[in-house]
Amino acid sequence: MSKNQELGITESKEHNTGEWYAEVVQKAGLANYAPEGMSGFIITRPRGYALWESIQQNLDAKFKKTGVQNAYFPLFIPESYLEREKDIVEGFDPEVAWVTHGGHDELEERLAVRPTSESIIAPYMAQWVRSHRDLPLRVNQWASVVRWEATDTKPFFRTKEFLWQEGHTAHETHDDAWEETITRLDQYQSMYEDLLAIPVLRGQKPDHDKFPGAHTTTTVEALMPDGKSVQAGTSHHLGTSFAEAFDITYSDEDDEIQAAHTTSWGLSWRSLGALIMTHSDDQGLVLPPTIAPEQVVIVPIWQEDTQEEVLSYAEGVKKELEDAGIRVELDAREQHNPGFKFNEWELKGVPVRFEIGPYEVADEEITVVHRPDGESTKEDRDGIAEAVIDHFDEVYAKLYATAEENLAENVREADSREEILGTIGQHGGYVKTPWCGDESCEDVIKEPLSAEIVMCPFDDDEALDDDAVCSICGEQATQTAYFAKNY
Amino acid sequence: MSKNQELGITESKEHNTGEWYAEVVQKAGLANYAPEGMSGFIITRPRGYALWESIQQNLDAKFKKTGVQNAYFPLFIPESYLEREKDIVEGFDPEVAWVTHGGHDELEERLAVRPTSESIIAPYMAQWVRSHRDLPLRVNQWASVVRWEATDTKPFFRTKEFLWQEGHTAHETHDDAWEETITRLDQYQSMYEDLLAIPVLRGQKPDHDKFPGAHTTTTVEALMPDGKSVQAGTSHHLGTSFAEAFDITYSDEDDEIQAAHTTSWGLSWRSLGALIMTHSDDQGLVLPPTIAPEQVVIVPIWQEDTQEEVLSYAEGVKKELEDAGIRVELDAREQHNPGFKFNEWELKGVPVRFEIGPYEVADEEITVVHRPDGESTKEDRDGIAEAVIDHFDEVYAKLYATAEENLAENVREADSREEILGTIGQHGGYVKTPWCGDESCEDVIKEPLSAEIVMCPFDDDEALDDDAVCSICGEQATQTAYFAKNY
Repeated sequence: MSKNQELGITESKEHNTGEWYAEVVQKAGLANYAPEGMSGFIITRPRGYALWESIQQNLDAKFKKTGVQNAYFPLFIPESYLEREKDIVEGFDPEVAWVTHGGHDELEERLAVRPTSESIIAPYMAQWVRSHRDLPLRVNQWASVVRWEATDTKPFFRTKEFLWQEGHTAHETHDDAWEETITRLDQYQSMYEDLLAIPVLRGQKPDHDKFPGAHTTTTVEALMPDGKSVQAGTSHHLGTSFAEAFDITYSDEDDEIQAAHTTSWGLSWRSLGALIMTHSDDQGLVLPPTIAPEQVVIVPIWQEDTQEEVLSYAEGVKKELEDAGIRVELDAREQHNPGFKFNEWELKGVPVRFEIGPYEVADEEITVVHRPDGESTKEDRDGIAEAVIDHFDEVYAKLYATAEENLAENVREADSREEILGTIGQHGGYVKTPWCGDESCEDVIKEPLSAEIVMCPFDDDEALDDDAVCSICGEQATQTAYFAKNY
Repeated sequence: MSKNQELGITESKEHNTGEWYAEVVQKAGLANYAPEGMSGFIITRPRGYALWESIQQNLDAKFKKTGVQNAYFPLFIPESYLEREKDIVEGFDPEVAWVTHGGHDELEERLAVRPTSESIIAPYMAQWVRSHRDLPLRVNQWASVVRWEATDTKPFFRTKEFLWQEGHTAHETHDDAWEETITRLDQYQSMYEDLLAIPVLRGQKPDHDKFPGAHTTTTVEALMPDGKSVQAGTSHHLGTSFAEAFDITYSDEDDEIQAAHTTSWGLSWRSLGALIMTHSDDQGLVLPPTIAPEQVVIVPIWQEDTQEEVLSYAEGVKKELEDAGIRVELDAREQHNPGFKFNEWELKGVPVRFEIGPYEVADEEITVVHRPDGESTKEDRDGIAEAVIDHFDEVYAKLYATAEENLAENVREADSREEILGTIGQHGGYVKTPWCGDESCEDVIKEPLSAEIVMCPFDDDEALDDDAVCSICGEQATQTAYFAKNY
């Protein structure tokens, strides 16, 4: 099938992953780059935004079922608030956009466009929490944030403004806060695995790479096709450090004042970048049926004398699917031939195509084609709205299996500095290895290769042998470390 | 029933509407004022945000059913873009917050925090529209915007940052754009009438009060209890002026280049302010069951020896309501007596209260009490999940009827300048009167009384007599004008 060059993807996923990604994002109609003077910003087009809405809805439902309420805090944060957070939180020094003027007047104090909101949320949590009866307190905010980092723009991965959610909670005990931390990590993992068809690794960040001030930072990591890891969502157990600094205290059952144990957790539209990057191919966007704006496209194939019967049959199929709650598009445009339409809908990532021509009409059948592998089967017209669900499941399973296989093939073991460097240098992906917990043993990998420890699995998921030694220094190992290059 | 002073409302809706409103907003847990250095901003608490989410969901579903897609445009707009809009649109000169620095560097061009987004949306609509086949194009954005107006803060009515949606569409013909304009106005009206229990007036703004550059500005107006009108949502037919300025053109079926006809329409969280203001009373927040976060609160009434049976009965009722999809809260707190709970849930605006004590248990009944009028009835325990729906309908009908009656009583006719001034001065509300269409005939009302023409009904809704003359100048009348003070 010949490819329309203007419409189609010209770059190769394998050879030029970055350019290919940028091309898919734009040609599939997901986003545009912002105009001159606004580099680092993007325009999220309806097709891209619909995907983000699906991610939002999936997580928002999970959050609400588990006691989270949404709230909205101001877009701006006074400089003194950020300074206060800097004092509290060693290492916190975000680059931000500064508002200095309101109307024609200079402001007395500069306002930061929020880079993250804990410095304005925490003081209000302190007001709202009085007694142990007010706990747990869980608030979440869906919002845009701005970080003024000068890097190459990569839509959904690296932009100065991005969309995300940040959740903030307060609890009576350390264990309650830990349970909360893991609940949110589980929800992130399940969103990736059950909505986006992306298997993830989970674990905690090394102590020296935690969120500043956190007791523990947990993460889900996804492997991208270029062999790099994406930090796909993080959930922080903050201990009592934020509570002490911002005075989030409660009176316990004995009327004693106690510091609360807090958490925060966030996931951004980087998840959308991971979705696009993971499944798409040289024909364009590939989406799992769970999230595709159109799950099925019907392409009618007619000659002049068969147009009426083909169209009428196709419309009947469309109606039946719609009535069953399936997102379906009938492409009855007369100015394009079926081949053009196949290419266009492949580019746009529709997971299931129905081809309907005179033969299908005569046989009361439908030709069903899967994206991305082109597998084609015939289904009876009768009961198609049920049968198509099985096709969705099959397509989802294929996408997931491919990603899972890629992940499994790209977790390798190594037990020396040279082997770690050599393995990541040659294959990318993850190298897992016993580690002593010392930052200097990470540095010797990081410096030559920009690969770092992206996570250490939880003991419950992957226990370390008692007698394991650090692959780098040979001292007693305390954790298993996953090294990888990352975004 | 004695009122807890700390908890309860101390101001009077009738006598101090402004103070009463601020107290309800804060004590019902809807919003807090932002801290020093951030005057004009508010913290939207979960209870307030949940109401905004309901409004969003209601409108978003309507929009999507009628062909609108959501998108997301950058938070910032280069100064040159706003200047361009100023050149195009006489009278457009918003006070904005200016970002002048990113990180440690001064920006080459200042960026405005968006006060509204047409100047960045329109250039992209111009890119996306090529052919008549791309029309209609409909995009909507849910976002926060900032207008640096120095006025007394009034949560949801007057804040420097506010949440809203702005829709932007392009069409082939003038009539298509008009149909779009009215579709959105109808949807706003229906949201007010069917979700918020607020009847509205609808019509168009006088020519001199249109959105700058618009062909027609249409509005829905709601009457507040202090006799002022709130512009509750606007929908603009922009003609071809924006399309010409921003080059939103398409090739028609004959391959001729044509300017598109565009619309824009917006509704903000002011709708939430109108909701709170309209129904609430001196006991606190009043919400229709359609939008109340808790539709029913169950207050158990026990003595020590009846606690177990009462609670168990109440829990059974709660479960049955939950299973039926009803939002229900069981207030089983031991540290508060029933009277305290009644007051607290009245303050918070729960529309239906179930009282369950030993008598209810014995008789297999439930005492059902309505907010705000305290009407109390007994219902059989059996079938309560169905019976409560009737109560929701009754409460909704009562709230709507009260608001409708208030509106009907406060639309008065007058046929001279003195009568208009006297009527609004004495009663507030609306005065309807024939008008010649000349701004100077509005000015003579506006100057002494700050009352203006808030809308002129559409001919289809309310036709003018052929021989009517302007009440102010005595010339031929062209429209019916509704004068009112407004927010």
